Amino acid sequence: MSALAPRPVPVALIGLGGVGRAILSQLLSPPLNTRFNLILIANSRQSLSLPLPASPLTPANYAPILEKYGTPIDWTSIISLLSGHSDGPGIFIDSTGSDIVPSMYTQILSMGINIVTPNKKAASSNQDLWNSIIEKTYPNSPVMYYGESTVGAGLPILSTLKDLIATGDEIEKIEGVFSGTLSYIFNEFSKVEGGDVKFSDVVKVAKDKGYTEPDPRDDLSGTDVARKLTILSRLVPTAPSLPEGYASVPTQSLVPDVLSNASSKEEYLDRLAEGDEYFSKIREEAQKQGQVVRYVGVIDLKEGKVECKLGKYPTDHAFATALKGSDNIISFTTKRYSPRPLIIQGAGAGADVTAMGVTVS
Amino acid sequence: MSALAPRPVPVALIGLGGVGRAILSQLLSPPLNTRFNLILIANSRQSLSLPLPASPLTPANYAPILEKYGTPIDWTSIISLLSGHSDGPGIFIDSTGSDIVPSMYTQILSMGINIVTPNKKAASSNQDLWNSIIEKTYPNSPVMYYGESTVGAGLPILSTLKDLIATGDEIEKIEGVFSGTLSYIFNEFSKVEGGDVKFSDVVKVAKDKGYTEPDPRDDLSGTDVARKLTILSRLVPTAPSLPEGYASVPTQSLVPDVLSNASSKEEYLDRLAEGDEYFSKIREEAQKQGQVVRYVGVIDLKEGKVECKLGKYPTDHAFATALKGSDNIISFTTKRYSPRPLIIQGAGAGADVTAMGVTVS
Repeated sequence: MSALAPRPVPVALIGLGGVGRAILSQLLSPPLNTRFNLILIANSRQSLSLPLPASPLTPANYAPILEKYGTPIDWTSIISLLSGHSDGPGIFIDSTGSDIVPSMYTQILSMGINIVTPNKKAASSNQDLWNSIIEKTYPNSPVMYYGESTVGAGLPILSTLKDLIATGDEIEKIEGVFSGTLSYIFNEFSKVEGGDVKFSDVVKVAKDKGYTEPDPRDDLSGTDVARKLTILSRLVPTAPSLPEGYASVPTQSLVPDVLSNASSKEEYLDRLAEGDEYFSKIREEAQKQGQVVRYVGVIDLKEGKVECKLGKYPTDHAFATALKGSDNIISFTTKRYSPRPLIIQGAGAGADVTAMGVTVS
Repeated sequence: MSALAPRPVPVALIGLGGVGRAILSQLLSPPLNTRFNLILIANSRQSLSLPLPASPLTPANYAPILEKYGTPIDWTSIISLLSGHSDGPGIFIDSTGSDIVPSMYTQILSMGINIVTPNKKAASSNQDLWNSIIEKTYPNSPVMYYGESTVGAGLPILSTLKDLIATGDEIEKIEGVFSGTLSYIFNEFSKVEGGDVKFSDVVKVAKDKGYTEPDPRDDLSGTDVARKLTILSRLVPTAPSLPEGYASVPTQSLVPDVLSNASSKEEYLDRLAEGDEYFSKIREEAQKQGQVVRYVGVIDLKEGKVECKLGKYPTDHAFATALKGSDNIISFTTKRYSPRPLIIQGAGAGADVTAMGVTVS
């Protein structure tokens, strides 16, 4: 193996939150540590060139070392470090949630650097930004942009969709529960066997367990799901165009009217129970029809619709029976996979599995 | 795109049964017809070099053309056609079910030719044969062997397993319904809501619908499932070794003792009802415990076991509720994906989806 083994690929990792730390750990451990050469790490303030003169970096010691030896972030030198590396231009991993880093993607790609990212911002915003990124990548140029983990974390969602299309299948419908947070909330709120738990109580438990963003409205707005649908839609040649990205996707918000005037996260959380009646009614109507309620994203190519909404599903539907915990479930109905769809299910969030999606890329 | 588009890859397609014809159709249609250059097709008797001097080959006209212009198969000239092609050594697609074609794989790979195949024989038989194939492939040599569609047809099973392992996840258990035929039979025979349909009646319907091999014992022996488990096991570094391949996997046969002396397919089918009591008892025991019966393959790394058997699953288990029709369902429990596994479900057989698995490779 060693005789023909290529030189390890130089990598810069920007962003050291939960996912970034898991990527760091995977890159520094077998089997990836022989394939990749981590030449720089950075958090939102500081960056550090590697290797260090003294001891090697480990997932356990990086934080104090970055604190002690790091220098303020300088994008120009990060980019030239990667583009000028003797083992080739390497890979820029953007593991931030930043809006600013994606605005540099076209420049980074122009320098011959590949980009791998779980950051949904670039692929799900304005179409012109996205076009400018795509123009810089293969087949127009040798560099690649990999965003596998932007949808479904480590689940093989984008790769499966790409394979279906590349082999000439026709997509008819993509439908799924794309948010681990909203999966958990509705799996608890609307069970096959019924129940009368209050929506506000479920949201509070989800928040206490750390399943929601610090402000649960960031999940309940549906924006994250709309971003994922945008990324999927842009892979489907026959999908409706979304010029403003996620903002062009009709998206039902789960912050009921009665709570829309809450001016702060605290006020919203305090008044959460005021929305209970709204959700209880929806559940009641569904139960009368033998259905459960799920928050889903739907790309319906026959109807030419992309939307995020509360959907009702029969109690024997996979979204009712198979779905548990905070799993994502995504169903692809295609010319080949019909009437029974291709279904992929599993944890669609979490640092380890998202990092897997990144390192797979 | 065209300025940088690489020359189409030369491909020889051997085997024109259901899957072979679907591969042919995909290779001759957009988008694949620009990426691949079909230079030879062959069935079990004749081969034909392409392009033809007159009209182009289509999925509709290949059969009479092959019949009229084909010449008896000559492996030496097929191999040298691929290895000596001006656009590179190309790809040999083995879409036969033959034992003989795989015995030539090492020689074909030695000539610098890549192999893509849905044929399970090479990867699931003797370990020495498999080792000799692996030795000829990347990273020891630039050629590749792709068998994605050997398990789960077009479902992303092997690729997902490879990605989990490559990113340092630890496989704990792989468990699934790997046979579309046995999926259909047990989904009909043992339903969540109960029922008293006879096993023999279900098998007869499955046979009449074309879901079984001409001799249903070829499905009911479990051998096909054992081959798929072998292929998966060989990707997992910590799996027990299977020196004789599928023959080393403990495999429960579904031909009950009372029918094991049937000397012909016809006698077996005539006497099928004699086995009904055996299966009814198993179903009854399961029902008493609130369970359904499924024929599953299991790779349990903690217990160091690989086996094919009738398993019992609670009526709220994904193998009971989510599984319908002749779908495959495969569940990966890993260090990252636990306690909730990563699940992939969909049609795991059929010409179109198997051909997709091949052309994806």
